[in-house]
Amino acid sequence: MIEELLEQAETYIPEGYDPALYKIRHSAAHIMAQAVVERFPDAKPTIGPPIEDRFYYDFEMARPPHEEDLVWIEERMRAIIKGRHRFEIREVTLEEAYKLFEDNPYKVELIEELAAKNGDTRLTVYQQDSFVDLCRGPHIPHTGYLKPNGIKLLSVAGAYWRGDAERVQLTRIYGTAWKNRTQLDAYLERLEQARARDHRVLGKKLELFMLSEEVGPGLPLWLPAGATLRETLVNFLREEQTRRGYEPVLTPHIGHLDLYRTSGHYPYYSENQFPPMSSHGMDGYLLKPMNCPHHILIYAHKRRSYRELPVRLAEFGQVYRYEQTGELGGLTRVRGFTVDDAHIFCRHDQVGEEIQDSVDLAIRVLRALDFKEFSVQLSLRDPDDHEKYTGSEDNWNEAEDAMRKVVHGMNFEVHEELGEAAFYGPKIDFMVHDALGRQWQLGTVQLDYNLPERFDLWYTGTDDERHRPAMIHRAIFGSLERFIGVLIEHCAGVFPMWLAPEQVRVLSISDRTEDYAKEVHSRLKSEGLRTTLDVRGEKIGYKIREAEMFKVPYMVVLGTREAEQDVISVRARTNKNLGGMTLAAFLDLIHGERSPDMSGDLD
Amino acid sequence: MIEELLEQAETYIPEGYDPALYKIRHSAAHIMAQAVVERFPDAKPTIGPPIEDRFYYDFEMARPPHEEDLVWIEERMRAIIKGRHRFEIREVTLEEAYKLFEDNPYKVELIEELAAKNGDTRLTVYQQDSFVDLCRGPHIPHTGYLKPNGIKLLSVAGAYWRGDAERVQLTRIYGTAWKNRTQLDAYLERLEQARARDHRVLGKKLELFMLSEEVGPGLPLWLPAGATLRETLVNFLREEQTRRGYEPVLTPHIGHLDLYRTSGHYPYYSENQFPPMSSHGMDGYLLKPMNCPHHILIYAHKRRSYRELPVRLAEFGQVYRYEQTGELGGLTRVRGFTVDDAHIFCRHDQVGEEIQDSVDLAIRVLRALDFKEFSVQLSLRDPDDHEKYTGSEDNWNEAEDAMRKVVHGMNFEVHEELGEAAFYGPKIDFMVHDALGRQWQLGTVQLDYNLPERFDLWYTGTDDERHRPAMIHRAIFGSLERFIGVLIEHCAGVFPMWLAPEQVRVLSISDRTEDYAKEVHSRLKSEGLRTTLDVRGEKIGYKIREAEMFKVPYMVVLGTREAEQDVISVRARTNKNLGGMTLAAFLDLIHGERSPDMSGDLD
Repeated sequence: MIEELLEQAETYIPEGYDPALYKIRHSAAHIMAQAVVERFPDAKPTIGPPIEDRFYYDFEMARPPHEEDLVWIEERMRAIIKGRHRFEIREVTLEEAYKLFEDNPYKVELIEELAAKNGDTRLTVYQQDSFVDLCRGPHIPHTGYLKPNGIKLLSVAGAYWRGDAERVQLTRIYGTAWKNRTQLDAYLERLEQARARDHRVLGKKLELFMLSEEVGPGLPLWLPAGATLRETLVNFLREEQTRRGYEPVLTPHIGHLDLYRTSGHYPYYSENQFPPMSSHGMDGYLLKPMNCPHHILIYAHKRRSYRELPVRLAEFGQVYRYEQTGELGGLTRVRGFTVDDAHIFCRHDQVGEEIQDSVDLAIRVLRALDFKEFSVQLSLRDPDDHEKYTGSEDNWNEAEDAMRKVVHGMNFEVHEELGEAAFYGPKIDFMVHDALGRQWQLGTVQLDYNLPERFDLWYTGTDDERHRPAMIHRAIFGSLERFIGVLIEHCAGVFPMWLAPEQVRVLSISDRTEDYAKEVHSRLKSEGLRTTLDVRGEKIGYKIREAEMFKVPYMVVLGTREAEQDVISVRARTNKNLGGMTLAAFLDLIHGERSPDMSGDLD
Repeated sequence: MIEELLEQAETYIPEGYDPALYKIRHSAAHIMAQAVVERFPDAKPTIGPPIEDRFYYDFEMARPPHEEDLVWIEERMRAIIKGRHRFEIREVTLEEAYKLFEDNPYKVELIEELAAKNGDTRLTVYQQDSFVDLCRGPHIPHTGYLKPNGIKLLSVAGAYWRGDAERVQLTRIYGTAWKNRTQLDAYLERLEQARARDHRVLGKKLELFMLSEEVGPGLPLWLPAGATLRETLVNFLREEQTRRGYEPVLTPHIGHLDLYRTSGHYPYYSENQFPPMSSHGMDGYLLKPMNCPHHILIYAHKRRSYRELPVRLAEFGQVYRYEQTGELGGLTRVRGFTVDDAHIFCRHDQVGEEIQDSVDLAIRVLRALDFKEFSVQLSLRDPDDHEKYTGSEDNWNEAEDAMRKVVHGMNFEVHEELGEAAFYGPKIDFMVHDALGRQWQLGTVQLDYNLPERFDLWYTGTDDERHRPAMIHRAIFGSLERFIGVLIEHCAGVFPMWLAPEQVRVLSISDRTEDYAKEVHSRLKSEGLRTTLDVRGEKIGYKIREAEMFKVPYMVVLGTREAEQDVISVRARTNKNLGGMTLAAFLDLIHGERSPDMSGDLD
């Protein structure tokens, strides 16, 4: 019977989680709870699960632990580990459970909930040493399965009981546990790297963007360096789009409510939107949550013939969503963001080619930004549920086949997800893997059989009859704000030269070379390089360190020798001294870096 | 006594209006009214003044006049003119006036108003032939002073009594009258030209922008050609600004209400703004009416030293104002517009130089856009009212002197307006004269001593103390939407080549040159020209006419002869055939037109 319970416990390990690590962290959470209640006898343990790479335990306690408490707790955990205490599982009746945890209202609440599931759940407790917890497992056989130098406490935070802001705030202690010290150290190193790459930290350090309570949370303001980076990125994609026959459009940031009633965006998604502006006796305007309805009106403003199709309308369109305050963070979750949005209106026989071109563009753009690894999620119909979807069977088959063909012909991982398509059409989502191996979902290519119907779009075919066009929503970066956040972390702020807000910094060694520095600066500027000049009376070492802090790709250092010979001394931000050269030689040297690489095969 | 009344009447002629023309048009209005009541005996004349170039008269009538009525009225007016009837002035008592106009409630209302002005107004009526009107004059001596072929009826429109939408709608008939036929013809020609240049008409014909009731009135959507034009214009100014040390920023389109409480924009200008967005338990956000507060936050986000100043922050910032529906029209009055906004934060000793540079930039930019004539209004303090203004006496003197020096040193008209400065600082407004001689107010350079106080801005001076910076608001186009409207009318849609949305159109004469046309098109495109391809199976004459309709600067026409010799035949939109040449020769030919001319002296 114990075996049966243990077997059952194993099934609680989430798919993809290393079972050994799961049990190690789950057990570490119990061990930490034991140490906490020894240090704080009044503390009431609530719940403490393993999460990705870590574990935590939430306590009701009079005060959060201080640094010295954490040191004590961590030491005590090591002692418990060395004690090789067995994790004993025991099944208990409801009465026994209530009795065991009568002093802990949180556990009582949990027991009540389990009891409410009309008896088909069997209650178990686990005990190691003196500590008993209501728990379904699984755990390691005894505490000795942990390594004393494989664990570490990480941080303390506040957390609401059951994640509910209306209920009591608890103290959450985070820790991590690994099979051995090597694994722990590697994890701590990754953590350190992620911290150093944190786009919120780098965004501030590199003066890319700011957030201001006065403007409002989740509404970033782009500082000069950030605005330059953004514009460079936008121009890069814009040029590439023009080359491929996209046409730019520009639309207002608001729209009449009726427009969103037609599109179906209002009132259905009201809770995620800024409230409508109403008064002056008017029905009201909405800050636009999407660009699609505006682009649809542009498609529909004149008669379209089959000959003009595809019509590809592109806009870097700022949209607004009212995300909950708790969910906002840096650039990755904001309330105002810019979508590199394009809508392709085409004949059904053009769908395949347009999808192919969209995917090709996306992959080339991401590669030019130094993302090497991609994967794609292909969201298709639930083959057993034909009721759910709009659009004809033929169109769906055609589109799904086209999408399959495109993505499987390329050199990346593809996950097909049956039943994950929206009711209005199948889609492709792009994921990139960043330098730390983390996965980010970016842009998308979506077919839409719904909006062309709702807005009654048509074109005149070869037969002189009206036909319904297919509509493709397509974004590569997705949200420009979020993408730049990901990019900052991916490259740790060391942007490719063509994208760097400041490309060259000219530094004078002393007053005597100030004029020469000014001359070189202006020559570089007139070559179209984003160049700044530092002729302050500071020590050259100080000036170089500052330029390095801003990760400026090249520093041009000018002393009297350089001035006399009309040459420049060049340093790369990689701390490499490239020595003296003529300005022309420098321009040659950096030529290849000045524009993104969009060439090469994709498969 | 009559002489006295006639003398008084002369004073009613507005300043700048030719007195003879004023009297001619005023009299023509009376003559038209006589003819109208002869044709429509139930029509009740209300008021009928001269306006710029024209006159009108508003009537209460059962139906608006049809085309044949207008022909009859115009003919009848000519007969009355030929009758040489005297305009007789007569002073009347209140009782006489009520009696005379007892059947006309509009005139009765006017008499009541005049009576309410406690008797210091003397009531007069004018009579010509059978028609008597309550009128203060002045008029010509007799109808023969008009020329039968110097008058013309223009149009019919609806108009509310006293301009009040709550009151009855009247029928307004517009006409014009001149000293002779030559003058009339010249005016009609100007009118025709203005109509042909109307940016609303051209905007549609050239597919530059659209307006949509579904999005909302006053919210233009830029179609591909218009968006390309706008982006080209924006890039042009952006590059020029970068060259002059401006830094780009990008800020959200909304801001928390508190921000506008601090800036003073809320609640004071509420009636001109879209209502705030409030709910979700929040205080509310405002669609931004100005970019200044956002730029101020960027200035203030870090410590600034005297060494970094001036800080010049520039944004093509979209702002929103709630203009009344009746005031909206095409691009010249809109509810959402983009300001080429820059804010310069500088030391007081830098103010003169910054104003100089702003004016220099403005003039060069406008000249590059083919505006040849400028004038400037300089708005200064009222020298007798020192209480009204914020900012120190010294700063004002310095700024006003600097502004005077800059604008008087240049080659254009300057109007100094004492007392027209805002309480927060003096300003320069730019006016351009367009191809039809009309004046348009565009951008502005304004000093502001108020916002740096309200937001407590400072920088660290050489003395290590805090100092208040000066702030300059500066825009050249003002509203990009309105500017493009003016530009379209100025150049009648014939944009300079560098700005034209489509620069070259490649036309194949027949199927046999389709491939060659595609090749030439792609070669031109790769040279960075905005090129389109027309290989439809239409007649070449038809294709050329269509390209001319879109005012495409150059057409490249390709037949078999061109294909064989690898040359191109070039036509300019000016209907000039430039003959055959190599592609390289064509690129040479157009080289100078491909970028705006920013060179040359300004004084």
